[in-house]
Amino acid sequence: MSYLHPYQDVDFVLRKVVDFDALCAAAGHDEINADLAATILSEAGRLGSEVLAPLNRVGDREGAKMGAQGVEESPGFKDAYRQFADAGWLSLTVAEDFGGQDLPNCLGTAVNEIWHSANMAFALCPMLSQGAMEAIGHHADDALKALYLPKLATGEWTGTMNITEADAGSDLAAIKTKAKPAGDHYLITGQKLYITWGDHGMTDNIVHLVLARLPDAPPGVKGISLFIVPKFLLDAKGEPGERNAVNCLSLEHKLGIHASPTCLMDFTDAVGFLVGEPNNGLAYMFTMMNHARQSVGLQGLAISERAYQEALQYAKDRLQGTRRDGSRIPIIEFPDVRRMLMTMKSCIEAMRVLALVAAAEADRALYATDPAVAARHFARLELYTPIVKGWLTELAQELTSLGIQIDGGMGYVEEAGAAQHYRDARILPIYEGTTGIQALDFVGRKMLANHGETLLALLTEMEQTAAELRSTPYRYGSVVKAFEAAVAAGTRARQSLLDGAAADRHLAGSASVNFLMLFGYLCGGWLMVKSAQQAQTMLDAGEGDPQLLTAKLTTTRFFCEHLLPRTGACLASVLAGSESTMALTVEQL
Amino acid sequence: MSYLHPYQDVDFVLRKVVDFDALCAAAGHDEINADLAATILSEAGRLGSEVLAPLNRVGDREGAKMGAQGVEESPGFKDAYRQFADAGWLSLTVAEDFGGQDLPNCLGTAVNEIWHSANMAFALCPMLSQGAMEAIGHHADDALKALYLPKLATGEWTGTMNITEADAGSDLAAIKTKAKPAGDHYLITGQKLYITWGDHGMTDNIVHLVLARLPDAPPGVKGISLFIVPKFLLDAKGEPGERNAVNCLSLEHKLGIHASPTCLMDFTDAVGFLVGEPNNGLAYMFTMMNHARQSVGLQGLAISERAYQEALQYAKDRLQGTRRDGSRIPIIEFPDVRRMLMTMKSCIEAMRVLALVAAAEADRALYATDPAVAARHFARLELYTPIVKGWLTELAQELTSLGIQIDGGMGYVEEAGAAQHYRDARILPIYEGTTGIQALDFVGRKMLANHGETLLALLTEMEQTAAELRSTPYRYGSVVKAFEAAVAAGTRARQSLLDGAAADRHLAGSASVNFLMLFGYLCGGWLMVKSAQQAQTMLDAGEGDPQLLTAKLTTTRFFCEHLLPRTGACLASVLAGSESTMALTVEQL
Repeated sequence: MSYLHPYQDVDFVLRKVVDFDALCAAAGHDEINADLAATILSEAGRLGSEVLAPLNRVGDREGAKMGAQGVEESPGFKDAYRQFADAGWLSLTVAEDFGGQDLPNCLGTAVNEIWHSANMAFALCPMLSQGAMEAIGHHADDALKALYLPKLATGEWTGTMNITEADAGSDLAAIKTKAKPAGDHYLITGQKLYITWGDHGMTDNIVHLVLARLPDAPPGVKGISLFIVPKFLLDAKGEPGERNAVNCLSLEHKLGIHASPTCLMDFTDAVGFLVGEPNNGLAYMFTMMNHARQSVGLQGLAISERAYQEALQYAKDRLQGTRRDGSRIPIIEFPDVRRMLMTMKSCIEAMRVLALVAAAEADRALYATDPAVAARHFARLELYTPIVKGWLTELAQELTSLGIQIDGGMGYVEEAGAAQHYRDARILPIYEGTTGIQALDFVGRKMLANHGETLLALLTEMEQTAAELRSTPYRYGSVVKAFEAAVAAGTRARQSLLDGAAADRHLAGSASVNFLMLFGYLCGGWLMVKSAQQAQTMLDAGEGDPQLLTAKLTTTRFFCEHLLPRTGACLASVLAGSESTMALTVEQL
Repeated sequence: MSYLHPYQDVDFVLRKVVDFDALCAAAGHDEINADLAATILSEAGRLGSEVLAPLNRVGDREGAKMGAQGVEESPGFKDAYRQFADAGWLSLTVAEDFGGQDLPNCLGTAVNEIWHSANMAFALCPMLSQGAMEAIGHHADDALKALYLPKLATGEWTGTMNITEADAGSDLAAIKTKAKPAGDHYLITGQKLYITWGDHGMTDNIVHLVLARLPDAPPGVKGISLFIVPKFLLDAKGEPGERNAVNCLSLEHKLGIHASPTCLMDFTDAVGFLVGEPNNGLAYMFTMMNHARQSVGLQGLAISERAYQEALQYAKDRLQGTRRDGSRIPIIEFPDVRRMLMTMKSCIEAMRVLALVAAAEADRALYATDPAVAARHFARLELYTPIVKGWLTELAQELTSLGIQIDGGMGYVEEAGAAQHYRDARILPIYEGTTGIQALDFVGRKMLANHGETLLALLTEMEQTAAELRSTPYRYGSVVKAFEAAVAAGTRARQSLLDGAAADRHLAGSASVNFLMLFGYLCGGWLMVKSAQQAQTMLDAGEGDPQLLTAKLTTTRFFCEHLLPRTGACLASVLAGSESTMALTVEQL
């Protein structure tokens, strides 16, 4: 149940698909390149393997619990957090002004994969801190930034996001928490549900970001404001002083991520500070959404990678059946076990290249000097976000389940570890917006709202890739055929929604998840094909490690042959329309 | 989290698709008919809802545990078991000679769905007793039958199957447990793993069926014999007396089914009695396999039904979003929630009709007076078995996962109940032969071994159904089209394996699971179409409840439109062959 960072694949993707060096050079980051990235990833990999991964089972068995003084984290977590923070990992992508290292988002993403693979429950804590830093960094005034950002960047304090309420889950319009003006601050009152790492004893302070309503706020989502509510109020020196009226009332008893405390938070006239403008909280949430949702998608990749490593080891070790010479056979030789391992491996590679390419779009949007170029990259980032969140997390369900299946009976026994990955993974398509929410975002805001233009731009690039495959002597005809069919499926699905959504008000909603999954497989397949093109070019030039590069050709082929055909089933669902989905009365269901 | 037996759908399938009355009449069971079946099911449904279902959460929270005197079952289970046994439910399908009621297997199957829905961990205990009765009833001599069968049939004692060992899971050839002759009995020594309900305190005795090797046995699967090893040896009156040397050493700490003790069993010169002929144990296991595997498939249906009922209730109750008039909207109105509910409902109906039709093939094979007819039904039974086991249990993973997804954040919280179904369900594709084992059985013994003849006979019947659809004015063109495409996919997949398996030794193994799943969807779709034909006939004749019958038309349509297209993805995988699956070296994986 050890973990090793798959640095070779990450390195390949950063260098050859993301084109990391060019990305950094264009931004004037001359000192940052893929070699530096490799060094950073290697350092992170060591911490992940040696410190965080060994605590993963411990945290599952002995989850966070309520103590007399608040939440007590799992054994060993406080020390691990200190090592993590002391090494500066919280500040990787933070601006230099606030003590950060200002490294590209795509490198931060590659690094974060490690934390989530090693110990997803632990990694949720810095992930939430990153979200808080982003919200404060983008929207708070300079005084609040100066007070809170540096301590979050060093990891001395952690951050949380307080959004959901009992009657306001996917529906943020229903938020009821109140904020009453009181001089230079506000008094926040209400309860927040499902607050990840809402309390713990690992740091001196916790910085809660809270959505609440001002007294004069308009109803619905246009009346929500964002507040900073620290666990301990800061004294004149900016150090934690008086205890604020924010408390964790109880913890959820969850299927997985036991070490990540999921808190019911109570605010009773807690002192809070307004971030940005009143009634603009939802917009601020949206600016953080690309990063937060891509982070959860990344968790889907990371936990699948961890499950794969476990299953691969088991498949090598487990003997079943006997050869004629009396020697026993490791199950890794059985074709159906290979099918499962190859499904895991090829999907993981597709997930990884998509996660990193999507993360790099944020960098490209930020670094671009031409506003039109920046806008194009931002639109692509926006388009990718629900795919990364939705597809990677749904796929993680299948892959962690295969991890159990490869282990056979042992997979169902908790001590083996596969079951924990499966349980931990199940939250991913739910939090930070369910798959259904991602799919509506994809179909609505990202597709129909711009008449499918940004999606058409993506499909056009895919067509170009298909044309390249056709015009060069590519090794595998099956790849070309499967990829072309998948692009055609995506094109047809897009057109059918553009044509049909206006006339059928249920079409977008009922087709959305299949539509999203279709584009998940298609984007994954496309970027695998692009990876294979690079691998082939390197092989032809005699560059690189031929074992790795031919493996990439094979995983691409496997993905195209065995996973891309699922786009056909998704398309059929989209084309079927909403009639049979919506036809039954509630009583008939 | 209550449970109600979906008696209307079961009644429809038994009357209209299984043709239960004709089946019973042909067997000379004039007193048994669908009306009697309805009465029996209603009685079982009451016990399931009122006694077993309320213990499902209790058993999950307070699972079976090791005590000083052996395994202690979950609170309330002993009393529930007594009610269950006292009502005669163990003896439903047992021969009259041994105190049974000799009812058809398909009715027993319909009843068993209830126990598994209500409390799967509990229901495993009588399920194992049924297996033990079948083994003893078919293969033991009259003296052993007289000693053990009546007490198992009343439920005074329970039965277990002791097959797996640490190094002999899917590979039974590796079984090492020894049986030493000692006069009229044998002394059994060895350890058995994953023994379901291997020990408990609910009954006076436990009858273990144990696979072991005689001293002179040939190696491999041809040297395995079957023994009865009672927990307490029987005295001269046939009552439990001296304690036998069989003990549970420990329990597995499992992902789910916590109330079902999964035992490591130790036999140290335990007294055992040979069942049937020496070295014939594997053949005896095979005769039980159809029933045992179909029972596990049935569990997949049953737990999906339970998960559906929970999710449906949640979707009705949970409010999110607000209408213009200020009223809030239950999420059941959202198209994507409908998509998930309809996926669950339509798949569950397809699973149920397949499970009952397959179970009826066992009755038809048994009741047929013409040996050729009996052989035909037995071949169909054999063909269905791996599909029922493989497809229903794999589908149960997706459906119980949808049960969580519909609940959103609440689904990840254990108290809501959805998570338990998801955890419980995960064992189903593993025990009683993994999905991979089912798929190899399907492709090898059930298909290639007879040159695809039995599968061709099934496909021919499906073609006839398609022809019927074409020649009658059927309401939904999309159903006809999707069903025809799926039949064509099945036909092509069959031919491609028949053509390719000889030349490519990895083809059958690497394609097998996709091949099995293809036929799962296809069989489910076919029987849904046949159900819809019956429903349409009734509607045209003004018979039956139009709400139910039109719902059946809609679920059939949904299944054909949204689930049958998956056969295309399965076919593509089968046609891709084994090359990319097997190409990587172990080091490249």
